[in-house]
Amino acid sequence: MGVTPWEVSGNIDYEKLIKEFGTSGITPALRARVERNAGESNVMLRRGYFFSHRDLDLVMDDYEKGRGFYLYTGRGPSGPMHIGHLIPLVFTRWLQERFKVNLYIEITDDEKFLCRREEGWEDIGKHAEQNIRDIAAVGFDPDRTFIFRDSEYIGNVYPMLLKIAKKVNFSTVKAVFGFTNETNIGFIFYPAYQIMPTLFEKKRCLIPAAIDQDPYWRVQRDIAESLGHQKTAAIHSKFLSPLQGAEGKMSSSVRESAIWLDDDEKTVRKKIMKYAFSGGRSTLEEHRRLGADLSVDVPFQWLSVLFEPDDVELKRIAGEYGSGRMLTGEVKEILAGKVNEFLEGHRARREKADVKKYMRTGKLAKEMWNKRFE
Amino acid sequence: MGVTPWEVSGNIDYEKLIKEFGTSGITPALRARVERNAGESNVMLRRGYFFSHRDLDLVMDDYEKGRGFYLYTGRGPSGPMHIGHLIPLVFTRWLQERFKVNLYIEITDDEKFLCRREEGWEDIGKHAEQNIRDIAAVGFDPDRTFIFRDSEYIGNVYPMLLKIAKKVNFSTVKAVFGFTNETNIGFIFYPAYQIMPTLFEKKRCLIPAAIDQDPYWRVQRDIAESLGHQKTAAIHSKFLSPLQGAEGKMSSSVRESAIWLDDDEKTVRKKIMKYAFSGGRSTLEEHRRLGADLSVDVPFQWLSVLFEPDDVELKRIAGEYGSGRMLTGEVKEILAGKVNEFLEGHRARREKADVKKYMRTGKLAKEMWNKRFE
Repeated sequence: MGVTPWEVSGNIDYEKLIKEFGTSGITPALRARVERNAGESNVMLRRGYFFSHRDLDLVMDDYEKGRGFYLYTGRGPSGPMHIGHLIPLVFTRWLQERFKVNLYIEITDDEKFLCRREEGWEDIGKHAEQNIRDIAAVGFDPDRTFIFRDSEYIGNVYPMLLKIAKKVNFSTVKAVFGFTNETNIGFIFYPAYQIMPTLFEKKRCLIPAAIDQDPYWRVQRDIAESLGHQKTAAIHSKFLSPLQGAEGKMSSSVRESAIWLDDDEKTVRKKIMKYAFSGGRSTLEEHRRLGADLSVDVPFQWLSVLFEPDDVELKRIAGEYGSGRMLTGEVKEILAGKVNEFLEGHRARREKADVKKYMRTGKLAKEMWNKRFE
Repeated sequence: MGVTPWEVSGNIDYEKLIKEFGTSGITPALRARVERNAGESNVMLRRGYFFSHRDLDLVMDDYEKGRGFYLYTGRGPSGPMHIGHLIPLVFTRWLQERFKVNLYIEITDDEKFLCRREEGWEDIGKHAEQNIRDIAAVGFDPDRTFIFRDSEYIGNVYPMLLKIAKKVNFSTVKAVFGFTNETNIGFIFYPAYQIMPTLFEKKRCLIPAAIDQDPYWRVQRDIAESLGHQKTAAIHSKFLSPLQGAEGKMSSSVRESAIWLDDDEKTVRKKIMKYAFSGGRSTLEEHRRLGADLSVDVPFQWLSVLFEPDDVELKRIAGEYGSGRMLTGEVKEILAGKVNEFLEGHRARREKADVKKYMRTGKLAKEMWNKRFE
């Protein structure tokens, strides 16, 4: 294909981020190894959307030697979810499916309550409930997945949180998270809870997350071994561009910048048609002559990341659109159709999602409620 | 009587402490009011061992107007308990008995684990178990008392802890508790939990504690009203002198300075005879001539605070000993007898103490386990 819009999109220099964060790029060899072990190729790996990692090679060692590993991700229930929130979860589901591993999903209701000045505890609770339904709709293995709200599971982990917290002082969280003297004491304590799930099993933990989440795990990697555990591994994604353009990431605070999971078909189509930033040219004549600039074209980016997994078809679109034979409106139509198809499936799965199984009655959930981490 | 050794003992200037902490002295009128409402006099109030307060007058208003109040105290399970630990609990029992009020006893296993570098979680657990037996042996009303370990009750209070924590920032805990950048993030969060029991009921909370504990409640008094609760009231005691002398307070770190609750009869007698600091004179001749200096005499202080509640008898001892007719050995014998009598009763009650009732099955305990504070 050759076209990976993420490498050149907007202001984000992902190579620089790798250097800044001190992570490693996913080499072609490592990607091939993951896909070989998985037994199939994955669109987000293949197209470079997941592009960086820590210790993913050791995770593969563990898998190949039969020691196994497990997955951990989370969600801060600050409001409704958009498509950008779901994409890493779709990738996580793929990992779980192919490697048959346990997955823990932490709903950080405590953190969101502590960091949002205006939000009440009840609001956070409502968001959490809705978010959990959306997450359950992704279709994880109900016997290998445990979704928990921090405030509900605290009784099972508090002594272990204390052990973590005892190893982290204010200087550290100040340096890593930018806390100040004005930070409230709950928020100061919270990083201990975010580390907790990396100690749920003795196996190595792998965290799929956007690269900007990496600092949260640096503290874990500093203290894990002193607690008799392994440093957590991570696999990092780029950001999904907001509709209006490739700079920055899709944001919950600008309602029009995102496709929300409860947007209906008409709204989705209208948003994409009206707001999606186009790499097409300003006049038809110019467009036919120069072709679209795929590197800044949001509809094409979205197709690349997830919505057009067929390489041949994506290549065809790139060829037609990039050469000016295809117009922006046509690409947007293709994307709108794909997104609506995706959301229709999501809504159907959401209706039927057995939330209780993930949280209480599934095999892993039941095990977890019977455990007390000391 | 006139003899209140505490006012002149050692280096502790209690009037100065009242000014420094900004609390109020217990006036004769307020003491009379408490005792009138209680229906009897109390030795520790009468002898000025409990000498300072915050809002105790408002507590009496509440009581007299039928609004009621409740009691809260705690114990950090850092090791075995000595007699100095038990004395405020004996006073607390008196308050509960006379006013028929609920009492919450927080066992701060989290705090002790977080602040003790050398202590493991299991050690703390063992101390907690032993301490709870000793506390249960004090003889509180089993249906009006709830003893809980922080680590066990966390699931019922965490959301409320977050609400408290959200109102307290690092600057505040730095100023009040002397936290630094090296303080661990668990210890930084802990003050939220210490405040929690002051919000257990809508009634006013009264905390009996040694005066040095006062700063812990200042934060509560700053934020309570914004959480829809009342500022907590407190009644403060002086310190029980260590055996070796009236300066400072009895300390867990010097084994010989205290009478431990599991010291046997012989040990108690030996410790008092050998270590108790005496106000008697160095020669018999001098003693007969000058009499003992009661203001620094530890055995006499201990008798005053608790062990000789009979004012006539205490006055007799003061007269005999202060005039030199009675010798140090005799006063020590009296005290050893009283302490051993007290400890014998304690050990018997400890054997029979129904810990489970205080923690799980008593009326108040059951109610508390069914509550979730959000």
